[in-house]
Amino acid sequence: MSQHPTADVDSLATAQRGARITALVADRLSQVETMLRSQLAADIPFVVEAGRYLFDGGGKRVRPALLLLSAKLLDAETEDDITYAAVVELIHTATLIHDDIIDDAATRRGQAALHRRRGNSRTVLLGDWLYTTSMRMALSHDRLGIVRRLCDAMLRITEGEVLVLERLGSLDVSRSEYFDIIERKTAYLFAAACSIPALKCETDLEARLALEHYGRSLGRCFQLIDDVLDFSSNTALLGEFVLSDLVSGKLTLPLILLLPRIDSGRRRWIEWILEDRAFDRVDQEQILELVQREGTLDEVREIAAAEASLARQALGGFPASPAREALELAPEFILNRRT
Amino acid sequence: MSQHPTADVDSLATAQRGARITALVADRLSQVETMLRSQLAADIPFVVEAGRYLFDGGGKRVRPALLLLSAKLLDAETEDDITYAAVVELIHTATLIHDDIIDDAATRRGQAALHRRRGNSRTVLLGDWLYTTSMRMALSHDRLGIVRRLCDAMLRITEGEVLVLERLGSLDVSRSEYFDIIERKTAYLFAAACSIPALKCETDLEARLALEHYGRSLGRCFQLIDDVLDFSSNTALLGEFVLSDLVSGKLTLPLILLLPRIDSGRRRWIEWILEDRAFDRVDQEQILELVQREGTLDEVREIAAAEASLARQALGGFPASPAREALELAPEFILNRRT
Repeated sequence: MSQHPTADVDSLATAQRGARITALVADRLSQVETMLRSQLAADIPFVVEAGRYLFDGGGKRVRPALLLLSAKLLDAETEDDITYAAVVELIHTATLIHDDIIDDAATRRGQAALHRRRGNSRTVLLGDWLYTTSMRMALSHDRLGIVRRLCDAMLRITEGEVLVLERLGSLDVSRSEYFDIIERKTAYLFAAACSIPALKCETDLEARLALEHYGRSLGRCFQLIDDVLDFSSNTALLGEFVLSDLVSGKLTLPLILLLPRIDSGRRRWIEWILEDRAFDRVDQEQILELVQREGTLDEVREIAAAEASLARQALGGFPASPAREALELAPEFILNRRT
Repeated sequence: MSQHPTADVDSLATAQRGARITALVADRLSQVETMLRSQLAADIPFVVEAGRYLFDGGGKRVRPALLLLSAKLLDAETEDDITYAAVVELIHTATLIHDDIIDDAATRRGQAALHRRRGNSRTVLLGDWLYTTSMRMALSHDRLGIVRRLCDAMLRITEGEVLVLERLGSLDVSRSEYFDIIERKTAYLFAAACSIPALKCETDLEARLALEHYGRSLGRCFQLIDDVLDFSSNTALLGEFVLSDLVSGKLTLPLILLLPRIDSGRRRWIEWILEDRAFDRVDQEQILELVQREGTLDEVREIAAAEASLARQALGGFPASPAREALELAPEFILNRRT
C-alpha cells in the first residue's frame, strides 16, 4: 500500500477525516488526556514508564473518542464519561503492555540477558497496575453495571490473549478461530466503549443494542485492517517491523486465507518462519509477493469493508445529527488508515 | 527450627490448633472450596493450571477463614461471604503467580530456554485472568464499597511488588522500607479480609476499625514469620529452597537487622549472593550460621510476637464468643507455623 505514489495525499486525507470525526468532542478528549496524566502522576517512579506507553506511543485515542461521540449521539453527556473514556484507554494500554511479554517470549530464543527479563517483571507489574488502576477509576462512580461491562471486557481480552498464546506457532489456525480471537481481543472493548453511555440511561435498550453492534463491527474492522497493515512494507510509517505477527508465531487472516491455495513447498516457507521465529530460511519479500499474488490482502480489506458497512447500518435508527455523522465517518477512517 | 527433636510434636500441635480455629467455619470453608472449583471449571484448558496453584499448592485458606470468622464474630453471616472469601483467595493466588515471574527473572541468568519464557507469557495471562475473574465475582453482589476495598488491596499488592522489584539486589534496604513493603504485600489484604464483613453492616465503625487493626497486625505477623521460615534449613517441610529470598535478590528483616552488626568481609558475602543470584562464592550454611550467631531470627520472631499480641488486643471490645476465641488463637497459630 505504502509504495503507492499518492500515499502522502492519502495520509493527509485520513488525518483530515480523523480531525472531522473528533472535532465534536475535542474539548472533552482533552479532558480525558488531563485525567490520564493526573492518574499517571503517581509518586512511584515506574509509573513514568506507563506514561511513556500512553503519551509517546502515538495512541490515537480511538476508544475514548467513540465513547464520547456515543454519549453525544444519545444526548447523554455527563461528567463521568471522561472517567470511563480514560478507563477504556487504560485497559487498552494495559493489554498492549502485557502483549509485549508474549511477543517477546515468542520472538526471542533464549538469548535474552538478565536485564531483559527483569524488564519483563516490570512489564507484568506495570500492566497489573494499569488494570487495577483503571478498575479503581471505574469504581469511582456508582454504576455497577458499567464496571461489570468493563470488567467483562478485560476478561474477554485476557481470554483472547490466551487463545493467541495457545495457537502460537501453529499452521492450522482456522478462519473461525481467528474471528473468535479478534472478537475477544478487540471487538468487545470497542462495543463496551460505544455502549457505556447507553448503560447510563438504562431504559433505552434499542439504542444500546444498536451501539453495541456498531462498536463490535467497528472493532472487527479495526483489527482486520491492523492485521493487513502488518503486511505493509513501509516500516517507517508503521513504526514496527513488517510481518511482525508472523515472526512472533501468529497467523492472521491474510495468511489463513493464503495457506490452502499454495503448494506444499511454499507452505513450508510459512512453517519455517513459525519454527525459526525469524526470516532465516525465507525472506520477507518472498512472503509479501506471495500474498500480493494471491490477493488475500484485498480479500481481507473487503471483509473489513463489509464490517464497516454493518457498523454504519447499525446507526440507521438514530435521528440525523452531527454525532451520528461523525460516527458514520469512523468506519471509513479506519478502512483508510495507514498506521 | 526444624532440627529440633520435638518438631513433629510441634507440627501436630500446630495442626490441632489450626483445626480448632477453622472448626467453627468448616462448612462454610468447604462452600468456598466448591465455589473456587466451579470458577476454575472454565472451558479454557489453561485455567487448569490456575487450579494447580490453587488446589495442589497446599494453600491453607488463611484469608478466607479469617473473613468467615469475622462475619461470625459480627453475627453477620450471609451468603455473599462465600463469594468474598473466594475472591480474597483468588487475589492472593494471582499475586503468587505473578510473583513467580519476578522471582524467575531474579534468579535465572539468561540461560532460560524458549519454553521457559513462553511459560512466562502463560503465567502473566493466568495472573491477569485470576485478577479479573476475582473482580468479576466481587461485582456479582451489589456492594460497591466492598469491591472498592478489594480493588484497593490489589493495587497495594502491585505497588508492594513494584517496591520489591525496585530494590532487588540492593544491600541498603532499610527497616522502614521493609515494613512498607510487607504492609502493601500482605497486611492490607489480611485487613481487607477481616473488615469486609463489617463493611456489610456499615453503621458499626468501631467494630470495623477493630477488625482492620486485627487483620493488619496479623498480616504483618504472618509475613514476618514467612520471612523467618525462609531461613529454616528443612527444605522438605518448606517445599522450597532455603534462603530463596536472598538468592532472588530480596533482603528481608533477618538480614536487614544483621548487616550493620557484621564486618565488611561478611557483608561482602551477602553482596556476592545478591550479585550472583547464586551460592557460588559463599554457601548457604555460612549465612545460616551468621544469622543464628547474631540472633536476628529470634529478634524478628519477637517483633512478630508483638504484632500477634496487638492483633489479640484489637479484639478486646468484642463480647466473648467462640468466634472471638478462634480469632484470638490465630496469631498463636501463625507464630508457631513451620510451613
